[in-house]
Amino acid sequence: MKSKIVLSLLALAIASPAFAQLKPEQAIKFRQSGYGFMAWNMMRIKANVDGQFNKDEVIKAANAIQAIANSGMGALYLPGTDKGTGWEKTRAKPEIWTEKEKLTKAGGAFNKEANEMAKVAATGDAAAVKEQFGKLSATCKGCHDDFKAKD
Amino acid sequence: MKSKIVLSLLALAIASPAFAQLKPEQAIKFRQSGYGFMAWNMMRIKANVDGQFNKDEVIKAANAIQAIANSGMGALYLPGTDKGTGWEKTRAKPEIWTEKEKLTKAGGAFNKEANEMAKVAATGDAAAVKEQFGKLSATCKGCHDDFKAKD
Repeated sequence: MKSKIVLSLLALAIASPAFAQLKPEQAIKFRQSGYGFMAWNMMRIKANVDGQFNKDEVIKAANAIQAIANSGMGALYLPGTDKGTGWEKTRAKPEIWTEKEKLTKAGGAFNKEANEMAKVAATGDAAAVKEQFGKLSATCKGCHDDFKAKD
Repeated sequence: MKSKIVLSLLALAIASPAFAQLKPEQAIKFRQSGYGFMAWNMMRIKANVDGQFNKDEVIKAANAIQAIANSGMGALYLPGTDKGTGWEKTRAKPEIWTEKEKLTKAGGAFNKEANEMAKVAATGDAAAVKEQFGKLSATCKGCHDDFKAKD
């Protein structure tokens, strides 16, 4: 009887939000998914500015990057996710957890340029998209240089 | 000299959009990334409707799902990507390439509910979010049942 009550309480606890915490490998997988999907969309914008420009495709790609950038991915850098494997071994550098101020600044710069990218894409101005793509790429690289380990 | 010209033409060709085609394993990885990131955001909305409701988090999650849903992921189902491994072995069923009409209908239903999810999230009405989350989940499941192989 006692074990039944314990099991029921456990079931209740698991269903409650406090226990809705992600496992480290899930959190790593989800953040790798976010970056992976943004990478595709960066490639698409680049292909459009280098080749034939398709306004609609650029808008779709820019909107996806913007929404992912603003989704609050910081929540996926849980304690215990500095090492481990999601889709692949994480390349998150320890500085993510130790250099908060620098990270916040880098994240903020990326979000700003991602929001601007979506605005510029909506205009359909290929030259402006090319220029903004350069600015956005620079914020990606800036963060990777400091916070992502090389292959 | 001749080989130099050939190499130059090759470099030019590789830089042109016609050659910007993704490799099958890249396309599979990118689509798995899109679904993976949507899965996280679905989990977040569910945690909010089951537990303490945070309007801002639900909006962020719904916007990410909406932008990914509208990003044109169909382009990632290139010929030759019916088999193969991205982050993991693809679970795309052959029906994706043979039952176009059914697929278009399923994709359209998903997009419609994802767009509606973002609208409902913006209202901050927890009960309406819960109801719309059910409708959106049903379109995910509908497509998985027909077009995604089981584990």
